[in-house]
This record gives sequence, structure tokens and C-alpha cells, in this order.
Amino acid sequence: MLNQTNVKLGKVRSSIRELFEYGKQRKAEIGADNVFDFSIGNPSVPTPDDVKKTLIDLIENTDPVELHGYTSAQGDYSARSAVANQLNAKFSTELNADCIYMTCGASASLTVTLNALLNAGDEVIAFVPYFPEYKVFCGHAGGSLIAVNCDGNFQPDLQDFKAKLSPKTKAVIINSPNNPSGVIYGEQTIKEIVSIINKSGLPIYIISDEPYRELIFEDTKIPFIMNYYDKSIVCYSYSKSLSLPGERIGYIAVNNRAPDFGEIYSAVLGAGRALGFVCAPSLFQKLIATCQGATSDLSVYRANRDRLIEKLTKFGFAFAKPCGAFYIFLKAPSGNAKEFAERAKQFEILLVEGDSFGCNGYVRLSYCVSPDMIERSLPAFKKLAISYNLI
Amino acid sequence: MLNQTNVKLGKVRSSIRELFEYGKQRKAEIGADNVFDFSIGNPSVPTPDDVKKTLIDLIENTDPVELHGYTSAQGDYSARSAVANQLNAKFSTELNADCIYMTCGASASLTVTLNALLNAGDEVIAFVPYFPEYKVFCGHAGGSLIAVNCDGNFQPDLQDFKAKLSPKTKAVIINSPNNPSGVIYGEQTIKEIVSIINKSGLPIYIISDEPYRELIFEDTKIPFIMNYYDKSIVCYSYSKSLSLPGERIGYIAVNNRAPDFGEIYSAVLGAGRALGFVCAPSLFQKLIATCQGATSDLSVYRANRDRLIEKLTKFGFAFAKPCGAFYIFLKAPSGNAKEFAERAKQFEILLVEGDSFGCNGYVRLSYCVSPDMIERSLPAFKKLAISYNLI
Repeated sequence: MLNQTNVKLGKVRSSIRELFEYGKQRKAEIGADNVFDFSIGNPSVPTPDDVKKTLIDLIENTDPVELHGYTSAQGDYSARSAVANQLNAKFSTELNADCIYMTCGASASLTVTLNALLNAGDEVIAFVPYFPEYKVFCGHAGGSLIAVNCDGNFQPDLQDFKAKLSPKTKAVIINSPNNPSGVIYGEQTIKEIVSIINKSGLPIYIISDEPYRELIFEDTKIPFIMNYYDKSIVCYSYSKSLSLPGERIGYIAVNNRAPDFGEIYSAVLGAGRALGFVCAPSLFQKLIATCQGATSDLSVYRANRDRLIEKLTKFGFAFAKPCGAFYIFLKAPSGNAKEFAERAKQFEILLVEGDSFGCNGYVRLSYCVSPDMIERSLPAFKKLAISYNLI
Repeated sequence: MLNQTNVKLGKVRSSIRELFEYGKQRKAEIGADNVFDFSIGNPSVPTPDDVKKTLIDLIENTDPVELHGYTSAQGDYSARSAVANQLNAKFSTELNADCIYMTCGASASLTVTLNALLNAGDEVIAFVPYFPEYKVFCGHAGGSLIAVNCDGNFQPDLQDFKAKLSPKTKAVIINSPNNPSGVIYGEQTIKEIVSIINKSGLPIYIISDEPYRELIFEDTKIPFIMNYYDKSIVCYSYSKSLSLPGERIGYIAVNNRAPDFGEIYSAVLGAGRALGFVCAPSLFQKLIATCQGATSDLSVYRANRDRLIEKLTKFGFAFAKPCGAFYIFLKAPSGNAKEFAERAKQFEILLVEGDSFGCNGYVRLSYCVSPDMIERSLPAFKKLAISYNLI
């Protein structure tokens, strides 16, 4: 008998990946221009020119044995050092290279962190709506995900949070800017989350999953968790900020103020080893060492967001205004997310039904797409709205 | 309480990585030329020129959004297709792209496969000497590694194999050319292993871990497991054949003749997802699509091997002649591997003590180093031999 959990995971796929595959097929059938694929968070903005130049420079001018060789398991020193310096400059932390562990992207950052922290039976709290793979990752690490409700603006329901804390709670995941809602948790919210944990007296870790940290479209500051809570770990990826999702490069930063910092970092190293990561891709580690602070031209996402907000509001769709990331979490007019996503498909609009995000009655729209596609999709959205008598 | 298994794993590191880090430090202290580092399997031969050219061509002439974007979880179709075609051409198999799953290197190939196959309590058989991380990977997947003895030439002890098969046995790992001994299992040995499994009537999988498949220095053919056993899975990596160990690129090939092929492939997909792999690095997947069949200039390893065999024999060291990979498994003159490795260190020779390979009294020498370093190391080896009165 094979491992049935994994057989099942492989068969159902994630609903996002499922729709992504459907989209590829549908485009082949009716032409790419006629499918409005808002399913996956695959950045549509090219990586900055600096990245391209640096990659070519590295390949042309570095000894290939050094360039493509194993790095230390924790990552190339220059990359880790650059990450620490950039975090210190941006958030006034006092991290050093030995607080950083380079990873194969955001999911790897999370699986390594969860396997470092969890023992069988532990609970991990996430606020709805949350990225569905959190559940898979917690399950594999022997724990279970406990969902905490949100209010109508997708902000954490702090009463529910308080109620769900227990001696079994090993960690709390914060994901802001949030996938799939695009909302940001302000400083007050972070302070209240921390205060509730502190008052509980429980030895809980906060994991801040922040691949969208650089994608903010309002004049809002995102509070950096390490400045509010010592037992904290930041999971990052360059997938979105540098438009390199397929290259699998990111990092884990462990707060050096955590009283058990050394133990956490060892557990991260051990978990990475047990999961088979060995090291993060070396060429891209060396890229990261020199491209800190660079980002793709994110203004396209802001323009996409503004255009969609304008038209979707006009068409009568309901949603909380997203301030970051590149998602809008649309309310299903019928209250049934599956029905909404299926009906949108009839108009060739691909939206991810959001029940798997732990929040019934919504669909996720990823607007990391070309502005052209958005324009082409608008008549289809209008027809979809009409089909629900929204206009 | 953190996950203590992973805390411990992170603290002890693998003995190989430990020595690798020591070597880096020692080189900084006394100069790189004065340390003879035979510790790690980091290829010393540069990646072929074709790889360099293809990488630059891909970066210069491919739409960066496509080039660096997510691929399907199973991998880019062109890469999987190229792998299947190359295996078919080489081994007369009838695989297609959907038998292949692209991975982040050899360790990932193994962890994904083991997590696909194992349930808690399952046993996995490996023949000593074996790569120590097998134990870690099996443990994480909920199983345990059962070591089967070898004879004096590091060939499987088939009586012991037969004795250790049980209803708990889920899989057998074959690693030929072998790390750390460099020996190859001939066709007769593979046939006997298969025959013993068949006679047992147990539903056992064979996992062939073959990152050294292309590194053969004798006129020997390595039998391809799929041609001998249906329930078989091949784990591969381009780390050694293309000298890209840090880039983390490899694959899993599932034998389409396995009666439960579809279930195995689903379990592989599910395990990859649960471990957080998402997809293999996309730039290197696209490289693999066009560089099938290329290898680094492996003649250097053969020359290194020949030179070391000549001199080490002359100095009185004992070992089984390696036919492939880039390792020699040296017998500790005192019978104590730890003592031998420590004494070698005094002569600035870094050898991995081999007890963790499941075979007491040996050390591993990796000869994927520069021929220059070998020449420089010879007087040190001579002194080491003299210290044991071998000459």
C-alpha cells in the first residue's frame, strides 16, 4: 500500500494548480487570447533588467565549478549576508548571516519551518482566508491547521483567536499582504495578536509568511513581525518581488532575539536536511547576493488593481478593497463559490473557488496578468454580472 | 518544544557536511593549497561549454516571464519529454513524459519517492555501504532503514538480503555506481536481487538511486532496473554528470510497466507537494530539455582514479577497486575509521569516516578534485602510510 495521503494529494492536486492546467488546455483549444485566466499567482511583469544582466555576468565571469557548486546547507554566505543587511536597513533589526537560511522558495520556507517546529499533534493557527497549502504543509509535519475567523474586511477575529489558543498551539501563521484577499494587517492588529499570545503565557511561535511584502499599493507600512515579537520566524520568497516563481529561491529568517534562537536555527537546518533540500539553487543564491532591494516594475499590478476595482464595482461585484499582493477576493453573488467559479468558466473567466481558503462563498482573482487581458476580459465580466442581474 | 529529531539533525549535521565546513575553515587558516580536501562529492570538472552557452541563450532569448515562471508541478513538458526520449534511446524503455517528475536534485528525488511509498512502520532495505542520508530520509518518511551486509568487494550479501526481507519491507534501494565504494552491481547481481524479491511474493518497490550513472571508468554496462523489475522507480540528478550540484536539478522516472503505475505517479506528485517542492528550478529544467546526453569531461575523474589507485596501492593502503562514481572506500589500517580520519587530518588530508555508511572500519575518499591537488597530496598520503608502518 502506497502512502494514501500522498496518493490523494497527488490526485486532487491543489484547486489552483487544477485550474491552471485547465486554463492551459482551454487556451490550446480556443486560443490564448480568448481565455481570461485569473487563476494563478504567476507574475506577469518580467524580472528587472538588472537580474538578467547579473545572471549573464555570473555565468560568463564566474568559475563554473564555484558558480554551480554546492553551497553550505544554510546557503551561500554572501547571499545570507546581503539578506540580513537588507532586512536590518529596512526594519532596524540586528540580524546577521547566521540568522538566515536560504530556501527553494516560499513553500519550502514554510515546510522547513513547520517541520522544524512541530511535533505530532501540535496545532498551527491561521486566519481565514488562508493559502490552502498551509493545511497540507501542517499535515505533513504531523500537526493540524486551526482556522480563526475573520471579519467582513478579512481582518482577524481576535475574539475567535483568543478562544482557539490552547496548550496545543505551537505556532500562528500571519500572511500579510494576504493571499487571497489582498488585505494588510495594520500595526494595531499585529500588536493585538502579540498581546493575546503574551497574555496566554503559551510558548507560541509566530511565522510570518510574506512573499508579497514588496507588493503594497497604498501608503501603508507593513509592521515587521520581529519588531513586535521575539519568537518569530519570517518566511520569504523572491517569486513575486523579482518575478522568479519558477526558480525557487527564498529564505527563512529566524529572529535572533528569540530566547531559543540557536535551537530554532538548528531545527531549521535539520528539517531542511530531512526534507531533502540540500541547498537552495546556487546560481540564484549568487544573484540574490547582488540584487537585494531590486524589484520588478510593480506599478503594472497597481494599475491592474485600480482598473479592476473600478470596473468590478461598476458591474456590481462585492469585495474588500485589496491593498497589496495581487489578488481580489470576490464575493459569489449566489453565495456559492463553486457555482460562481463554474459560471465564470462559461464566460472563459478562470477564478479559483475560495472555499479551500477556509472562507466560504468567495472566489480568488489573481490580477498578475497583462493589462491587455484585463481589457479583453471586461465584456465577459459584464456578461457574468448580467447573468446574476447585478446590473 | 521544537521538533527534537530535526534539532538534533541540524546540530550534528551530516559527517560529510561537517568535514566540508571544517575544510573551508582550515583552508582560510593555512591556505587552500595546503589542505587536501577529499571530503565532498562536489564535481571539480566544469559544466560543459554547451551548458554555459545554452544558459546564456535561454536568458537572452526567452521571454523572462515564461523562462522564470512556474512550470507544472510535474515539470516542464519539454524537459520531461527529453528525459523520457533519452532513457528510451539508451535503455530501450517505452517511457513518456508522464512517467517523469522533475525534481530539485538527487536528495529531493529520494525524499519525494520515499514519502510517496512509505507508511509509518515500513522498512526500506539498503546494501552497505550506503549514503548515510538514506537513514534520515527514511526516518522522516515514517520508516526505518534496514542495512544488508556486503562481501569484501562491497557486493550485496544475498543471503543476508533474503533473511532481512519481511512483510514490512516496502522498498529496496540500489545505488550503483555506489557512493561511497565506487563499485558497480553487475547484471547477475541485479537479476539475483530481483529473483529473491519475486520468490518472496512480497509487493516490494525497487528504488534505483543513480546520480553516478554516467560516471563509469571500466568497460562495464550498468543494468537499467526498469528492464529487470516492473515495480521500479529511478531517482536521478544532473549534479554529477553535468557538474551542477548546487543547482538542484534531477528527476524521478516511474516505470510505466508497474501494475500500479498511476498510483505511484500520483503519490510522487502528492509527496512533492507536501514537502513543499512546487516545481524544479525552471531555468535548469529548460536547460535539461536541450542538453540531454551531454556530460562534463569525465576523463579527469578516470585519470584521478588511476593515479590514486597506483599510488595508494604503492603506499600499502587497502581498498576495493572502484569502477565508477568518484569515490574510493579505503580500509582503515588500524581498523578504526574515526582514528584513521583523525590521523589523516593531522596531515591535512580530509577523508570522511565511513562508519555512518553502515560499514565499520573504512573512510571515503572523494576524488572529484583537481589533479594538481592529488599530486600535492601524495607526500602527505605517504607520510600517513609511514605513520602506520604500511611502507
